[in-house]
Amino acid sequence: MSTDKTRKEVDRVIRGAQKASRELAARRPAKINTALRNMAALLAGERKRIATENRKDLAAARKKGLPAAMQDRLHLSDKTFRSMIDGLRTVARLDAPLGSTYDERTRPNGLRIYKVKAPIGVVALIYESRPNVTVDAAAICLKSQNAVVLRGGSEAFYSNRVLARLFSRALADAGLPREAAGFIPTTDRAAVDLLLARDDLIDLVIPRGGESLIRRVVEKARMPVIKHYRGVCHVFVSAHADMRTALPIVVNAKTQRPGVCNAMETLLLDRALADKNKKALLEALIAEGVELRGDKTVRSLMKGIGRATEEDWEAEYLDLRLAVAVVDGVRGAIEHINRYGSHHTDAILSRKAAEIKAFSRDVDSSSVIINASTRFSDGGEYGMGCEIGISTDKLHARGPMGVEDLTTYKWIVEGKGQIRS
Amino acid sequence: MSTDKTRKEVDRVIRGAQKASRELAARRPAKINTALRNMAALLAGERKRIATENRKDLAAARKKGLPAAMQDRLHLSDKTFRSMIDGLRTVARLDAPLGSTYDERTRPNGLRIYKVKAPIGVVALIYESRPNVTVDAAAICLKSQNAVVLRGGSEAFYSNRVLARLFSRALADAGLPREAAGFIPTTDRAAVDLLLARDDLIDLVIPRGGESLIRRVVEKARMPVIKHYRGVCHVFVSAHADMRTALPIVVNAKTQRPGVCNAMETLLLDRALADKNKKALLEALIAEGVELRGDKTVRSLMKGIGRATEEDWEAEYLDLRLAVAVVDGVRGAIEHINRYGSHHTDAILSRKAAEIKAFSRDVDSSSVIINASTRFSDGGEYGMGCEIGISTDKLHARGPMGVEDLTTYKWIVEGKGQIRS
Repeated sequence: MSTDKTRKEVDRVIRGAQKASRELAARRPAKINTALRNMAALLAGERKRIATENRKDLAAARKKGLPAAMQDRLHLSDKTFRSMIDGLRTVARLDAPLGSTYDERTRPNGLRIYKVKAPIGVVALIYESRPNVTVDAAAICLKSQNAVVLRGGSEAFYSNRVLARLFSRALADAGLPREAAGFIPTTDRAAVDLLLARDDLIDLVIPRGGESLIRRVVEKARMPVIKHYRGVCHVFVSAHADMRTALPIVVNAKTQRPGVCNAMETLLLDRALADKNKKALLEALIAEGVELRGDKTVRSLMKGIGRATEEDWEAEYLDLRLAVAVVDGVRGAIEHINRYGSHHTDAILSRKAAEIKAFSRDVDSSSVIINASTRFSDGGEYGMGCEIGISTDKLHARGPMGVEDLTTYKWIVEGKGQIRS
Repeated sequence: MSTDKTRKEVDRVIRGAQKASRELAARRPAKINTALRNMAALLAGERKRIATENRKDLAAARKKGLPAAMQDRLHLSDKTFRSMIDGLRTVARLDAPLGSTYDERTRPNGLRIYKVKAPIGVVALIYESRPNVTVDAAAICLKSQNAVVLRGGSEAFYSNRVLARLFSRALADAGLPREAAGFIPTTDRAAVDLLLARDDLIDLVIPRGGESLIRRVVEKARMPVIKHYRGVCHVFVSAHADMRTALPIVVNAKTQRPGVCNAMETLLLDRALADKNKKALLEALIAEGVELRGDKTVRSLMKGIGRATEEDWEAEYLDLRLAVAVVDGVRGAIEHINRYGSHHTDAILSRKAAEIKAFSRDVDSSSVIINASTRFSDGGEYGMGCEIGISTDKLHARGPMGVEDLTTYKWIVEGKGQIRS
């Protein structure tokens, strides 16, 4: 496709999405829920057609020799289907996030002023690899009565396209504009830059994928971006920790699912923690198959621990590997985390209130966990019912983001003829 | 200054600000209020020194032949001094925006989860012309316990520098880090691009100034931007308006202070409004010296009305000039506003509930005003006590922005040894 043709296609899709977003904002939430349930039914009913498209992507991936893990992520398995369908039904059941009024005040001149929750408008999703993101993320955007513009990776083009088309049908069957689920129908890489320049029509872009994709989006986007770079999560074990709970928490944070963003990547041990307790923690991790990389003090505790370099303190291993440092109390832990962390999720294990208070206030992260596993940092675990990602930004939404976080507000000022003097 | 030297200076200032921001976040709000009051006292006490620096800028402006209006904006007059001092004292008296907890929930596994308000961190201000922004905007950033990095226009360099230095002294005198009010000590234009690339150290940038400055910031910034492009505000007079209040509102919205962003720039008249009422509105405006530019129908109502072009519908005149269009009822008004407006502030004058409801919901603007003047769209009028600007963005903060809008939150998860299974 020529760049000129790509430009026209991008323009058509985002103009359609903007128009649809205005219509969507004016409709009753029940209509949106009907569209989400329609989509769940279509996923079940059109299973064969989807599988056919998915096989095209899988064949291309094999031919290109993509890594097995990537081929695996492309595959729309039975489990993925069940999860997409369950997700749609869960989101349909959630309370409508719009319309509530808040922050009301009446001014001395009689003006009644308040905020009312409103959709953001058009949300663009730029994502890689997993085609189920097309369904999961679009569902959350639509639930908040935003139109969505989908731009998936070229490796999942056929799968994404069929899923987006079905979502348009699900919308139309509910009497809603099909353009509210817009899909960029080209693998031309220029389309992404074209999208990111259109702050006149797109209100928010959410990138989901590897760090290089996200950096590219941040560099080019003129509209607001909500992103999640990395999860370099820490657990600090204080000398005042309860070792009966600290041991299982540390093991759980590292090993329960090492490949995800809220798994622990660095363990921080209080210098004042008894050596036998330090050793007990390290031995428990080694017993679970974790490869340790420590600073000098850690390595002096026992044999077989590798040397940690500066890169290890910043590493998101996503694997059974762990950096371990000894720090000087809670202040040392805070400094280490703020220097090397990724502002995602960090935990303190302690029974001392003053330490917990300082850690909670001074660690500059989206979630601070006290005496529990970092693995709880998740929209589902926080009771949101669903999650579109975990923001490591500080503006608009921080930490796990749900349906509420895809809304904005407007100010309403009710008068009776007031003028300004 | 060489680019290399500029790079070093920018790096020094923003690193200092980041370090200071962590210290600031941990201090009691009372300390900040002391610093704000110190600054008010310094403005009074160091009046002569400030005037000397201000004269340097004024002399340079005359020499360069800057327009009189621009020279006027540069001048730190008695009135500007009083306004800066009053502003500081008002902000010092406002409630501390941090520390409150909200959205609390207890999960079935016993985890207690809530949000707590937190500072954003480092806020960069990039502004033009008026040196009092140095004081007014910095005060609001600091009140929310953020560090601020100030980059004013070269035409106000000496005035901005002395004000920033005094703010650093006011902080130090309160026992707070002076680097919390950072100032870029060079007029090298490269400094702005260098700042905007540092999303590792700056959390938010707020541009204040003309549209070209703002567009440049949006294009280059890698961190979030909160901005205000233009105020193209509309008043729609419905056939169901109460003409006794409509007349004074329309005149007030246009003429009470035409040079500001919340003044009316386009008047929309309902086609069904009686011709005599249409004429009465136009005559009242003409009587106040307003130059009108209308569409065909408007021009047929009376003589002496200029022809409005497409540019007029998008114009922010900031002057006694007004575009006037006749529209087909409330739907026509909504369409016109969403097509040509700037998402700032738009008003409906009507006594019909269904019309008001549709207008409030479907006009995509930060403030919707019902039966009152657009001139009320302002932080002070909304009861915020102060204002750092009016956001025409939809993310994070929309409409007038106060101290609360310069905060973020973090999630706190309190456990008793919970692990994820």
